[in-house]
Amino acid sequence: MTTTSIEPIRWQGGVDGHLVLLDQTKLPTETTFIDCRDVETVWEAIKQLRVRGAPAIGIAAAYGVVVGLQTVAGGDTADLMQRLDEVTEYLAGSRPTAVNLFWALDRMKATAADLKNSGVAGNDFTSAMLRGAQAIHAEDRQICRAIGRHGADFVGGKQKSKFLTHCNAGGLATAEYGTALAVFFTLQDRGQSPHVFVDETRPLLQGARLTAWELVQRGIDATLICDSMAAQVMKEGRVEAIITGADRIAANGDSANKIGTYSLATLAAAHDIPFYIAAPISTFDLTLADGDAIPIEERSAEEITNGFGRATAPDSVAVYNPAFDVTPARLIHGIFTEAGVISPVTTENVVAVVRDES
Amino acid sequence: MTTTSIEPIRWQGGVDGHLVLLDQTKLPTETTFIDCRDVETVWEAIKQLRVRGAPAIGIAAAYGVVVGLQTVAGGDTADLMQRLDEVTEYLAGSRPTAVNLFWALDRMKATAADLKNSGVAGNDFTSAMLRGAQAIHAEDRQICRAIGRHGADFVGGKQKSKFLTHCNAGGLATAEYGTALAVFFTLQDRGQSPHVFVDETRPLLQGARLTAWELVQRGIDATLICDSMAAQVMKEGRVEAIITGADRIAANGDSANKIGTYSLATLAAAHDIPFYIAAPISTFDLTLADGDAIPIEERSAEEITNGFGRATAPDSVAVYNPAFDVTPARLIHGIFTEAGVISPVTTENVVAVVRDES
Repeated sequence: MTTTSIEPIRWQGGVDGHLVLLDQTKLPTETTFIDCRDVETVWEAIKQLRVRGAPAIGIAAAYGVVVGLQTVAGGDTADLMQRLDEVTEYLAGSRPTAVNLFWALDRMKATAADLKNSGVAGNDFTSAMLRGAQAIHAEDRQICRAIGRHGADFVGGKQKSKFLTHCNAGGLATAEYGTALAVFFTLQDRGQSPHVFVDETRPLLQGARLTAWELVQRGIDATLICDSMAAQVMKEGRVEAIITGADRIAANGDSANKIGTYSLATLAAAHDIPFYIAAPISTFDLTLADGDAIPIEERSAEEITNGFGRATAPDSVAVYNPAFDVTPARLIHGIFTEAGVISPVTTENVVAVVRDES
Repeated sequence: MTTTSIEPIRWQGGVDGHLVLLDQTKLPTETTFIDCRDVETVWEAIKQLRVRGAPAIGIAAAYGVVVGLQTVAGGDTADLMQRLDEVTEYLAGSRPTAVNLFWALDRMKATAADLKNSGVAGNDFTSAMLRGAQAIHAEDRQICRAIGRHGADFVGGKQKSKFLTHCNAGGLATAEYGTALAVFFTLQDRGQSPHVFVDETRPLLQGARLTAWELVQRGIDATLICDSMAAQVMKEGRVEAIITGADRIAANGDSANKIGTYSLATLAAAHDIPFYIAAPISTFDLTLADGDAIPIEERSAEEITNGFGRATAPDSVAVYNPAFDVTPARLIHGIFTEAGVISPVTTENVVAVVRDES
């Protein structure tokens, strides 16, 4: 089967080129790209979740800075620096809680400060800023590739080919291969034929809408199920390993991820199936001793009661909608990072890998 | 809080009266009743799932026979018996796989045969047939009440008040109190204040649409969650017991029920929370030694990929949609029936209770 590679984030052309974003809000029914030729279009795309996933937002924002600078391209350095301030402040307001957004904007500002100090000006300045954005993009691509390589070595060494994943930890959220999905893509690159069960992932259906789409695009054998069916496919012997991403990992390895991940890890233990996390080093927060310190965001009732354009529950019923849960380290058999695999998951092993890399 | 009792199935008036059905397809947003004054309307209501749940379908069909006989009320016995054959054959085609439908129609035919043999004719015949349908209705009501009483004695004796349920095992599927929900209604009748977490129950959302509606109607404190959140609420210590219905129970106690039930029972065991089934004796099938012999119906992919009026997954992805799963007896702490509680769940205890009652 041939694999189709769709790039969710792409810079088209040279320094006077533009950013092309896949509109993720149209997936899975439409594959539509947005040409971002001004910073307002980039802002709107981030705001409206047309681009989503922490690394992907950072990359889009970095390119957004370049698009913004084009209005004063060839201008003097003072104009460029003033425009840079305008553009970064403006983009920072698109999603005020996205840490990677601020990180990418700060890095672009640091690059600009270095350029100014080095006396780089005019078109050379904008060209160098484009290279800065491309470096952020390339680094994330390398991180995802390394996560995939380490994960594939690990599960491949155990002859595993039947997987289950949850939510979307794929190329749509990152620079290319994603984190959990990078393992499957790497196995495929090596000529293997992984099969992946995909939890639809209520309430927002990222598994059905995004992960299923990515796997189908790349010709990976995928089967969509409802979240409540995961235990049944485990019981039927159709899953050899579970791999998910993570949003935040404490020093002891306790991992916060999309709601339902803890359920999966508990069910995996009951069926003697190993459960793995795939995540970049930037996901670890060594200031947190364990998962108890990770706050669980509660989201609106409407995501559950009116998630599909019509009411599917009585108005007056109470709703509990935690967006994340925390899987304790004891249920995690390994964490795949760009610096290698942490297994067994202990504070000592986590700290050793994260400190070396950071 | 006052409790509101809405009767999903009601006979209005005397022998020349009619059947009134709550249109369950309009729930939870509209509470609409259908006046069934001819057998065609009853057929359509069963066919289109306006009335659903095995016992409820049987009761509606029994009343449907009476509505059908009204066209020849006062006629001679030959006319009545010919019309009876027409009406029962017609209604049997409304849902060809519903066992309770055939059971109720056969029972109405047996009642008619007895009446004919006893020389009952004319209006007396139709009146007696109405009493036959009312008896089916009343018996189911008594069964549900008894299940609720036994279940409430059992969990109430253990001081439990925090529950979780799945799918709809309530009054909408039966004559009044339902099976699993009967336990909560009975606790409420006794002046207690149970709290119930309700799994939305993908793909068809019977928990969100029906169970949440029933609990709210009766003023029971209910909280709706996605199926993937059940493990989290267990971890948070907010569930003391899980109670679901069952579709079919083998001689050893292995129980088939809505997909996701096995997942819940497994998660309950991991959190040291007891898991119970509430079901009438008619649910047991002693010809099956264990759950391995229970076939699992697979339903259409569209229930998952297009369940909300629009596509939420790529067309080309494979889908697995088992409608039921089987929970092994070892995970079930007790089965609440109208004849008492089976606990521990062993073949010996199952057979003793079922044989006594059948």
